[in-house]
Amino acid sequence: MRQNPARRAALLDAAIEVLAREGSRGLTLRAVDAGAGVPVGTSSNYFANRAELLRQIMERTGERLTPDPEALAETMKAPTSPELVALLLRQVHERMEADRSSYLAMMELRLEGVRRPELGAELNKRLRATLEDNIRFHEEAGLPGDRVAVILMYLAVHGMIVDDLMVPDVLAGSAGELIDELCKRLLAYGTRETA
Amino acid sequence: MRQNPARRAALLDAAIEVLAREGSRGLTLRAVDAGAGVPVGTSSNYFANRAELLRQIMERTGERLTPDPEALAETMKAPTSPELVALLLRQVHERMEADRSSYLAMMELRLEGVRRPELGAELNKRLRATLEDNIRFHEEAGLPGDRVAVILMYLAVHGMIVDDLMVPDVLAGSAGELIDELCKRLLAYGTRETA
Repeated sequence: MRQNPARRAALLDAAIEVLAREGSRGLTLRAVDAGAGVPVGTSSNYFANRAELLRQIMERTGERLTPDPEALAETMKAPTSPELVALLLRQVHERMEADRSSYLAMMELRLEGVRRPELGAELNKRLRATLEDNIRFHEEAGLPGDRVAVILMYLAVHGMIVDDLMVPDVLAGSAGELIDELCKRLLAYGTRETA
Repeated sequence: MRQNPARRAALLDAAIEVLAREGSRGLTLRAVDAGAGVPVGTSSNYFANRAELLRQIMERTGERLTPDPEALAETMKAPTSPELVALLLRQVHERMEADRSSYLAMMELRLEGVRRPELGAELNKRLRATLEDNIRFHEEAGLPGDRVAVILMYLAVHGMIVDDLMVPDVLAGSAGELIDELCKRLLAYGTRETA
């Protein structure tokens, strides 16, 4: 069995589109073959079973949603301030808008993880690590706000993304402004101004 | 065709369990009949089709998650304060814990709404109205925090619920304390103390 990394990535990208478009009930190895435009049976050379496909989709969405290192380095040249925190969180929301399929696929995986303990364990581990990575990044960059503030901002932006992804009329395009207010208000707490 | 309201509610409760347990791919009228322990064909007397079943499930979860009016009136006897806001938000989170099936069913409906424009329109309308109801309740009760603060608190608690429902290791039981911190910090903004 010959495999190549570009082909694997293309199959996973097709799988993400199938999940986003048809939900987990549409996700079969055959549907992935069709979506990727490859001969029937190709996916089964790359994924031993559906569980393995789901696990690799999780990893692939992580790759797709990671910010470009150069763009991030450019953003981080600005002075550390509540405004910079807001800009970084706006960029998280923009990555969702630019790649809705990855986020929809992740929501499908989260629900599937409730029903499949093995996938659920992987998701818990992965998303817990992602939160810790975000906290460490924040602290090492010297951005304003303690650990609890970072978690609260993460949760609020997470809530915005979940709504904007599936019920966009709820926030009706106000996410950017809400992120600015969130950072301004939360990060005022405990500073000299509020003492 | 004879229908009765208790039977309809029982069928919808069975449908919520099917959605929570098996996901939208398991939701068929036949599975609802089986879950409710009624003769095959019963559900089709109550729901013209799957779309109508989904719409009524949405309404039923709303009923199930509405706080008990007497308990709410009791809670509202306390002085209006950030602590009371935190208590109300803790109760939202507790309602999720007490009825995970309704929340899981709603997440399934939200994803299904992305694929079914008619259901999506209903969900947008319903969830937008729920947010406005929450803001109005907050304002009429004289609770601290403006409209933006209410929306930000709603979003953060929404993010907590989404994680605790599907990937509970991320917050690992800290939601209650995080809600307290959220209210304390956000509601300090703009008060005399911070001026």
